[in-house]
Amino acid sequence: MNVTYRGIVRASCAISSDRAADYIASRQFERPTLVLDPMRVATQYDALAEGLSGARIHYAVKANPQPEIIGTLVARGSRFDAASRAEIELCLSQGAQPCDISFGNTIKKVSDIAFAYGVGIDLFAADAEAELLKLAEHAPGARVYIRVIVEHSQADWPLSRKFGCAASKVVPLMDMAVELGLRPVGISFHVGSQTRRAAFWNPVLDEMVKVWAMAKDAGHDLTVLNLGGGFPAFYGESIDTPRSYASEVMHAVRARFGAVDYVMAEPGRGLVAEAGHIAAEVLLVSRKSDDDMHRWVYLDIGKFSGLAETMDEAIRYQFETARDDDEFGPCVLAGPSCDSADVLYEKRPMMLPVSLSAGDKVMIRNCGAYTTTYATIGFNGFPPLDVIVL
Amino acid sequence: MNVTYRGIVRASCAISSDRAADYIASRQFERPTLVLDPMRVATQYDALAEGLSGARIHYAVKANPQPEIIGTLVARGSRFDAASRAEIELCLSQGAQPCDISFGNTIKKVSDIAFAYGVGIDLFAADAEAELLKLAEHAPGARVYIRVIVEHSQADWPLSRKFGCAASKVVPLMDMAVELGLRPVGISFHVGSQTRRAAFWNPVLDEMVKVWAMAKDAGHDLTVLNLGGGFPAFYGESIDTPRSYASEVMHAVRARFGAVDYVMAEPGRGLVAEAGHIAAEVLLVSRKSDDDMHRWVYLDIGKFSGLAETMDEAIRYQFETARDDDEFGPCVLAGPSCDSADVLYEKRPMMLPVSLSAGDKVMIRNCGAYTTTYATIGFNGFPPLDVIVL
Repeated sequence: MNVTYRGIVRASCAISSDRAADYIASRQFERPTLVLDPMRVATQYDALAEGLSGARIHYAVKANPQPEIIGTLVARGSRFDAASRAEIELCLSQGAQPCDISFGNTIKKVSDIAFAYGVGIDLFAADAEAELLKLAEHAPGARVYIRVIVEHSQADWPLSRKFGCAASKVVPLMDMAVELGLRPVGISFHVGSQTRRAAFWNPVLDEMVKVWAMAKDAGHDLTVLNLGGGFPAFYGESIDTPRSYASEVMHAVRARFGAVDYVMAEPGRGLVAEAGHIAAEVLLVSRKSDDDMHRWVYLDIGKFSGLAETMDEAIRYQFETARDDDEFGPCVLAGPSCDSADVLYEKRPMMLPVSLSAGDKVMIRNCGAYTTTYATIGFNGFPPLDVIVL
Repeated sequence: MNVTYRGIVRASCAISSDRAADYIASRQFERPTLVLDPMRVATQYDALAEGLSGARIHYAVKANPQPEIIGTLVARGSRFDAASRAEIELCLSQGAQPCDISFGNTIKKVSDIAFAYGVGIDLFAADAEAELLKLAEHAPGARVYIRVIVEHSQADWPLSRKFGCAASKVVPLMDMAVELGLRPVGISFHVGSQTRRAAFWNPVLDEMVKVWAMAKDAGHDLTVLNLGGGFPAFYGESIDTPRSYASEVMHAVRARFGAVDYVMAEPGRGLVAEAGHIAAEVLLVSRKSDDDMHRWVYLDIGKFSGLAETMDEAIRYQFETARDDDEFGPCVLAGPSCDSADVLYEKRPMMLPVSLSAGDKVMIRNCGAYTTTYATIGFNGFPPLDVIVL
């Protein structure tokens, strides 16, 4: 059956083209498949880079380490933020230069630090004394930026206090770094993943510029301001265009920080999410009892096979089917595994066509970020998310 | 460094031996590794089988599909509960007979049903009309049991209403199955994973025996009672021995259901969790500020690389280190990934030695279930959980 999604028709009017959606609409898939369009990543990179003029993009590789995406970004002049040795090796294999890679994980294996330093990486994150000790021993003389906790985030993806130190610890850590022979060059922070409005950055930047000033007053010559990520993707709720969002952020940064030698931005989701959609299928539609409020719709993809970001119903994907001209009704949406936690949306049921039934194809929009690598290796015997790169 | 864990010494007094713990204590690991002892699975199988006398064990393969475990259980005479085609293929590859495999997922792919039926599997779960239609078409004449929602669970692992139908739908579904040429042979239910006390089964069995009677009164000749899983593993809070737990459950079943042709039990966690431990390492210990209440301890394993069951802090693992004779203090425990959700225990901090520091080895006890397959394929560039089978 060759279906046409209402959304695809809509999209093709609104934006010039959507190759991934067109591909999904015209083909059959044996199992859940992410279709990725690297050209869309390139377009997004250009828009963000234009808006971020004066700052350098370090792509957060963890969002999607597909080699073709890394290669596309290398060709575009992007730099990279790596979370582990494997991500560093991946970037190097696709042509990135060591001087263009920062090692942004504040929790690094000693052997990974030594590897990174050995291949020529010279920019590391830290937020604790013990991490500085590791860096001093295994990356002597390296440049280090201190990650600071953001107290006021308005992001969609739950934050925790896992990364960063309190503002009061920044100067003592920089002092210690100097004593250890490291070069404390700046600070980093993160407004939170999927920060939908550029204006949400303002209170965070107000917080951070105080930290910045405090460190400079203490005599540290700061040259690196790492803005982290937070650049949003479209999941149904309106967001600004990447160019205007990035431009507004940079305007707010300059208004507070003035001229900074090296401003880094680490978009992940905001660069790649819209470059891919998932082709999925309805396995079952049922009601638990005749007087059940909602239908249950079960897909062949779930929380453990690619849609991990539905955890706590944080990221709310858009679903499109060939029945989108029919009447819509609420349903609980769940995955295919024998795990009762594998429910995607229940607290806020999802609106889907009431005529939806087993065997229907479903396209899940803007799944280019945080899907493939979040997939389990084979929970319940279901294989990881398949990927097709256009 | 060859360390001795206090826990190992303790364990070796309490139970005869713990080969996995001994192995971990005497070796170094490059990365997080699950060490599994199939002999321990065999011992546990024998104990459960003895307690469940009169019932047949169908091992819930999803708990740990390690081929050596399946092979060990085949040799022991176990039967199997499969969630997907891949799990069926695995069981067959290890010598299980098709007649010993039930296909217990209520959300099955049509192609998986056809495959299962083709290889000779004849026992399927269902909880909805649409699933019966799929079975009638692709597994004509097959035996089917209806999964019923349990309203009152006292389990440790969060349940949802994802599986099963309301009691009121059981007879209509069985009637429909007959009309479709299927053979409705019984019911199944699940008390919830990690149901720590056998007595917790009683209210559930009271609920289920009413459903059983209702279906028999409606003229259905029921021969299969599937008790599901729920058999607990030891995570620090006391549980009964597997034999006495199983025996108490069977006593409660017989008191209510009388003689039933075929009683099935589907232990997963209760069979394999205690057969393996994870060798891990501390990557970092830090405080967010000088007046921080708790330390943060970061391990080289987290929620996305094997410890997914720490979701909502549901399963509370036991951690053992070489410093367990030192003073203990509370800490927030987190994983190594650049994901703020990768925090294992924060609401209820974990007590660990105050002297713990980067590089220290940690053994995580009783991780044989729901770890390897929950691991992501490479989130943040971290490889899936390594496995060593003794």
